[in-house]
Amino acid sequence: MNAPVGPLTESPVLSQPYLLFLGDTAEPGFAKTAFGLRDWAPDKCVGELRLTGATVSTGLTAMTPAEARAQGARAMVIGVANQGGVIPPAWRASLIEALEAGLDLIAGMHMRLADMPEVAAAAQRLGRRLFDVRVPPADIPIATGRKRSGKRLLTVGTDCALGKKYTALALAAAFTARGVDTDFRASGQTGIMIAGGGIPMDAVVSDFEAGAAEILSPDAPDDHWDIIEGQGSLAHPAYAAVSLGLLHGSQPDVFVVCHEPGRTVMLGTAGYSVASIEEIVELTIALGRRTNPAIRCGGFAFNTSALDPAEAEALMARESERLGLPVADPVRRGPAFDALVSSCLG
Amino acid sequence: MNAPVGPLTESPVLSQPYLLFLGDTAEPGFAKTAFGLRDWAPDKCVGELRLTGATVSTGLTAMTPAEARAQGARAMVIGVANQGGVIPPAWRASLIEALEAGLDLIAGMHMRLADMPEVAAAAQRLGRRLFDVRVPPADIPIATGRKRSGKRLLTVGTDCALGKKYTALALAAAFTARGVDTDFRASGQTGIMIAGGGIPMDAVVSDFEAGAAEILSPDAPDDHWDIIEGQGSLAHPAYAAVSLGLLHGSQPDVFVVCHEPGRTVMLGTAGYSVASIEEIVELTIALGRRTNPAIRCGGFAFNTSALDPAEAEALMARESERLGLPVADPVRRGPAFDALVSSCLG
Repeated sequence: MNAPVGPLTESPVLSQPYLLFLGDTAEPGFAKTAFGLRDWAPDKCVGELRLTGATVSTGLTAMTPAEARAQGARAMVIGVANQGGVIPPAWRASLIEALEAGLDLIAGMHMRLADMPEVAAAAQRLGRRLFDVRVPPADIPIATGRKRSGKRLLTVGTDCALGKKYTALALAAAFTARGVDTDFRASGQTGIMIAGGGIPMDAVVSDFEAGAAEILSPDAPDDHWDIIEGQGSLAHPAYAAVSLGLLHGSQPDVFVVCHEPGRTVMLGTAGYSVASIEEIVELTIALGRRTNPAIRCGGFAFNTSALDPAEAEALMARESERLGLPVADPVRRGPAFDALVSSCLG
Repeated sequence: MNAPVGPLTESPVLSQPYLLFLGDTAEPGFAKTAFGLRDWAPDKCVGELRLTGATVSTGLTAMTPAEARAQGARAMVIGVANQGGVIPPAWRASLIEALEAGLDLIAGMHMRLADMPEVAAAAQRLGRRLFDVRVPPADIPIATGRKRSGKRLLTVGTDCALGKKYTALALAAAFTARGVDTDFRASGQTGIMIAGGGIPMDAVVSDFEAGAAEILSPDAPDDHWDIIEGQGSLAHPAYAAVSLGLLHGSQPDVFVVCHEPGRTVMLGTAGYSVASIEEIVELTIALGRRTNPAIRCGGFAFNTSALDPAEAEALMARESERLGLPVADPVRRGPAFDALVSSCLG
């Protein structure tokens, strides 16, 4: 299940393996960092730490920082996000406990570890390191729109947090399994932790958003594919700016729309309906053709984790018939996923 | 020609009046700050300073910093932008000369005055102040998409630097002249210098772009209008992220498309065609209806400065007939502009 990862020289070398910190999270949608690491970097995760009130779990063994250190862990990763990217005061004691147990800290939130005085002081006192993977490179250029060589696939979505990273990783692994020269390009904190590099696109200043996407997937041989992790949704009232800059700068040849059947309200909004699949296809083509006139939809990735296998299979077959392109769940795989991979490769 | 300006408490109180610094600029599109201040804040501009090689002029009296100080100037404004927002080393001597002559400095570029060591040292030594109006507020929230009270108009464009600020200022002045309670909301450096406040939207981190637009035009009485200065273009390969965040967060009831007849290539790109008016109308409605389902196009503002009056009038009449809505030049005004104002007010 491991995906190939490109040579990404911008990123720090993170201390590994990890203890996954889940805080007091009760919303599974906010724990995608922890789930992503568990699924895509299992050999780098020794266990999890949860606070009272948490209802979300990765299923890994619960342990204290000291126990994790004894198991070989070298860093504790904050494996949850929340609205606004703030690290709550209630987590502070656990962060300091981890430092005292001999672990470095890794976070991917807007609020930086280095900006928390007690955490920074404890790290300095103990000789521990703080990694804020959500800090973008300092010298991002303004986009030019110049057409780059090589082929690109971007995952897009009808909402946030419904499988764009999973889908990109699964497609990158499947492309590689077919002998295609492929790199996974990470655009968010979890992807960067998995890949060891990438650009945190939502932390980039707006004027440079498309420029960041241009350097994320540089010129490559004509038969090389970059599989680019998408962000947000063009229809999300808060995050569409991130999605559009990433789309324009990625200039994808192919996009895959990620969707979660049964989700009705967009994450973090006051009652906005999840966008329709057709609306996202139309918007992605209408906007994406500006930097790549040949852009096309390769198919659809459904997150069917809430459905039983028979229900999921029947739903995806119906939707594939209706939409005229393959529909597959990248977690369940199977023949439908093979069809999606073939459709993307063209 | 003065536009009303809302109570914008975020901004610093800038030192006035100004000497306008044009550097060695040869591209009129990059001098919109200087032109905007000349036209919309003429009583705050005492003259201009140009370097060898400059071919662009505001038409104001050329003077040295010392001469400007003797005429009452209190600050020199860098009245030009360039690709990437860098302050070239060749301008440094003039900036220090201004500080030595008793002027504060005001800039709206990505590179901050305070980050230029020699300029910062000279300001400290001389007791002068450095204003970087392109630094956004520190505590911008994530957008919620919540519908706000009051009415909003946003100017959008087929490219950058073709009249979105001018159009917004002209419409705000015209609304006020008709007795409508109106505020101009500035989203870029020049607008902020004119208005004395606002948010530099292209300097905001992408994740917060729509949230910044939400606080730029807060809840207001039902019959109040905010006229919001647009940025970039939804079709620009570098700046569309800024445009979309501003559109979603502004949730405009009405938008006006700004266009420059005869411009063929988008500013700062390697050969991208200027978008068609129809494409911008379609994209703006397709995306803008997400946060305001009632969004409508109020008409079109043409920058006809390259045409003679008869040519301009004939072209705008033809285009108005073709597009089915008023087309006017906010600089030339006249009956067509009155029709545009009426169409926007609905």
